[in-house]
Amino acid sequence: MSFTAEQIATVLNGTIEGDSSVVVNNFSRIEEGKPGTLTFLANPKYTHYIYSTNASIVLVNNDFVAEQPVRATLIRCFNAYAALAILLDMVEKTKPQKTGIEPMSYIAPDVKYGEDIYVGAFAYIAENVKIGDNTKIYPQVYIGDNVTIGDNTIIYPGVKIYQGCTVGNNCIIHAGVVIGSDGFGFAPEDGVYKKIPQMGIVIIEDDVEIGANTTIDRAVMDATIIHRGVKLDNLIQIAHNVEIGEDTVMAAQVGVSGSTKVGKHCVFGGQVGLGGHITIGDNASIGAQSGIISNIEAGSKILGSPAIPVRNFFKSSVVFPKLPDMYRQLAQLQKDIEELKSNLNK
Amino acid sequence: MSFTAEQIATVLNGTIEGDSSVVVNNFSRIEEGKPGTLTFLANPKYTHYIYSTNASIVLVNNDFVAEQPVRATLIRCFNAYAALAILLDMVEKTKPQKTGIEPMSYIAPDVKYGEDIYVGAFAYIAENVKIGDNTKIYPQVYIGDNVTIGDNTIIYPGVKIYQGCTVGNNCIIHAGVVIGSDGFGFAPEDGVYKKIPQMGIVIIEDDVEIGANTTIDRAVMDATIIHRGVKLDNLIQIAHNVEIGEDTVMAAQVGVSGSTKVGKHCVFGGQVGLGGHITIGDNASIGAQSGIISNIEAGSKILGSPAIPVRNFFKSSVVFPKLPDMYRQLAQLQKDIEELKSNLNK
Amino acid sequence: MSFTAEQIATVLNGTIEGDSSVVVNNFSRIEEGKPGTLTFLANPKYTHYIYSTNASIVLVNNDFVAEQPVRATLIRCFNAYAALAILLDMVEKTKPQKTGIEPMSYIAPDVKYGEDIYVGAFAYIAENVKIGDNTKIYPQVYIGDNVTIGDNTIIYPGVKIYQGCTVGNNCIIHAGVVIGSDGFGFAPEDGVYKKIPQMGIVIIEDDVEIGANTTIDRAVMDATIIHRGVKLDNLIQIAHNVEIGEDTVMAAQVGVSGSTKVGKHCVFGGQVGLGGHITIGDNASIGAQSGIISNIEAGSKILGSPAIPVRNFFKSSVVFPKLPDMYRQLAQLQKDIEELKSNLNK
Repeated sequence: MSFTAEQIATVLNGTIEGDSSVVVNNFSRIEEGKPGTLTFLANPKYTHYIYSTNASIVLVNNDFVAEQPVRATLIRCFNAYAALAILLDMVEKTKPQKTGIEPMSYIAPDVKYGEDIYVGAFAYIAENVKIGDNTKIYPQVYIGDNVTIGDNTIIYPGVKIYQGCTVGNNCIIHAGVVIGSDGFGFAPEDGVYKKIPQMGIVIIEDDVEIGANTTIDRAVMDATIIHRGVKLDNLIQIAHNVEIGEDTVMAAQVGVSGSTKVGKHCVFGGQVGLGGHITIGDNASIGAQSGIISNIEAGSKILGSPAIPVRNFFKSSVVFPKLPDMYRQLAQLQKDIEELKSNLNK
Repeated sequence: MSFTAEQIATVLNGTIEGDSSVVVNNFSRIEEGKPGTLTFLANPKYTHYIYSTNASIVLVNNDFVAEQPVRATLIRCFNAYAALAILLDMVEKTKPQKTGIEPMSYIAPDVKYGEDIYVGAFAYIAENVKIGDNTKIYPQVYIGDNVTIGDNTIIYPGVKIYQGCTVGNNCIIHAGVVIGSDGFGFAPEDGVYKKIPQMGIVIIEDDVEIGANTTIDRAVMDATIIHRGVKLDNLIQIAHNVEIGEDTVMAAQVGVSGSTKVGKHCVFGGQVGLGGHITIGDNASIGAQSGIISNIEAGSKILGSPAIPVRNFFKSSVVFPKLPDMYRQLAQLQKDIEELKSNLNK
Repeated sequence: MSFTAEQIATVLNGTIEGDSSVVVNNFSRIEEGKPGTLTFLANPKYTHYIYSTNASIVLVNNDFVAEQPVRATLIRCFNAYAALAILLDMVEKTKPQKTGIEPMSYIAPDVKYGEDIYVGAFAYIAENVKIGDNTKIYPQVYIGDNVTIGDNTIIYPGVKIYQGCTVGNNCIIHAGVVIGSDGFGFAPEDGVYKKIPQMGIVIIEDDVEIGANTTIDRAVMDATIIHRGVKLDNLIQIAHNVEIGEDTVMAAQVGVSGSTKVGKHCVFGGQVGLGGHITIGDNASIGAQSGIISNIEAGSKILGSPAIPVRNFFKSSVVFPKLPDMYRQLAQLQKDIEELKSNLNK
């Protein structure tokens, strides 16, 4: 498919600067843009590429000011990244969709499912499962007894959902994700650990996306809850009885310990670790690799292990490499003062 | 099923305080307890909920002292958490158990297996595998050639066990676990890395539980060994030739490098990293996110990266945010002293 | 199979010291060496074991100098570890190889594949896939539409490769790896996150090994690229549009954020985290658990979070536990100086 700048600007409600008849048939990144492709500029780090890119069209924010001549046709939009998303979405939707139930899948006789679902070969759907309309279950997925899955949800190959858990509408669960494995609960008894059976479930609400090989444990009782709109990256660990608030995003390899409650609209960098039984307020922003062991107030911006306000962390980190010098200087000062004192006392 | 406080106290060998005829038919968490449910109090952080919970029965430790009136019936036990485990266990055991060999599984002709096993659809059991009695192999599990698995073990969906490894009795291996993948061994040669074939195996002893998507590499020769009673949480990495001592527990996302030996009864927080070729003594306690690069004595309690005694770590962490001030103060003191010196020398 | 020291020395082009007729039929580690086995000494930490090992043959580097009598026959080689690799490789190659296409696998009608491939049961090979000669696809692997895989590559059980990705020749992909899952891209819009469709692919070049449960996300456009000879350990996260240079090795649980470029011949310790949109120069060495948020020059050796030169990190880490003392001393010095000043002003 080919589109002119004019057609694209119409879709995006954008303003054209340059040749409105130029045609593109693919996307590219700005630093590697080829003629006939459309690219975008959202991250200011990449601004210098706009003067050299060979892409034919560049989506830019309305407030972009060119400091040199730009060869490409510009389309100015309210938000270049969101505009790109709209275009990518349109292309994505033209792709053929999988439907139907492939042979060599296993679906228990009492499973209830809606219209236009896809079930791939070697998928296993156990007893009393309910699946909504338009949902796709890829090959080799395991859905345990009594699981409920909503409409328009995509479960990629090899996902494992243990018995009793629920997944909402419009969710995307990537390959290798495990939902509902036992929480890590043991009672020490005479030097060995006795397992605490984990009787609860996991609830994944609507519009949640979960990255590859992430694991979410079932609650000891009640439920581990991932609320509407949460986005989890790959290889994240969510322990039992955790609750993640609406529209919170977590980058890869974050770990959240048991019974911790994370608020809404929080942003987590990668490899963050949260201790158990704590509360993270809404809109908190937690930098990569932070370690958190106590409650965090709403709106905090923190970093480090243990985490402190971001600005403090960076200021102290700048001093950290000077510690050996400071140590020596301090010793020297002590000596100097002793000397001064004894001189004065003479 | 419903039980009276009296029936439960009898099972647990506990003492009743309050109405011994009250009936419960489910479990709840103390902060969300509903009438007709049983809950427990083990973590002191939750003590205040006991005065407001609507649960009908609360298991408490013998030494619990109420500071306000408690509506619920109390059952005093030696260890409330362990008592809960006993009750949960009883309920768990009433659940119907999977047995039998489902069609669309693959079992090599020479596989030997005991009584009452379960093998789910799309499970693959390769040549010369031995499986004990009452063991459950869920759908989509892969068991390589010459693997041995004991009695009463549960292998959840999608677990992959490479050839030659052994798993003991009463183990629980959660979905997505990989046992016996190649250790990370390469010899640099003319600027490229030549693979060192990994000829050893993994030995999982009895009573081990392994969390979802954890990976345990086979040894270069001999064996990587997880000893009796070890509990590993999700997304843990155990490298080749590692040995983990009996009854050691590790929280999620811990990584243990090659040839390291971990002692018995150790406790690891999440996201800890251990270097290679080191020894961790028995009963060591290693705080979350610690980094360990040298041997650790038995009984140590350490934290940080590099790890130091826990108390030291916290004390130094309190000073860390003051580093910029200290840096300025130190410079000021140097100036002051220079000034004093020159004044004295006048 | 049994071999004499003489036969082995001939293969390795090594020099014998001791009984050249001694026979071995297995490998062992030096600390647990049994008679009739061959072991090796590469890591100096293990040197003391050479005087007590019961192994019959020890491979040592040419420059090894015995400080006590050694019972075993020594074979001196240019590089003992690489020599071991050659022997292990020879044994590995004598093992029977899986070939053929097992029943209960799914291969789309238009798949093109070469000679002597193996496809295990419950493997799913989707439309328009191309697979080279001698490649092994183990059970329960998923290969999406339009994927291309080269010759002599091993895809272990349960690997998931999303549509459109390519894997080169002589690669080894361990169980549970996910290649081509969606990159983590969302545009915030009115407080919720709108998914940016990820239209690119993943390219895995030749001679790459990828450890168990590692995840590599597809690019938003263009490709995430793992170049020739890269070795990734287990549970690593590679985000969208990342590029990893030739012959770079990464230990387990490393996380690389989006659009970051890693150079050639770099060495990463475990649990390192790289920020997004940065460049790591060739031959950089990054210590375990480091956090990197800006570009790193070629050849750097860094450690810490944020990372600084390794020597500085260790020097400062030694001072870190002394911070509380320094803080007190500093306060004391301030007092002393005030006192001195006021004494002088009297």
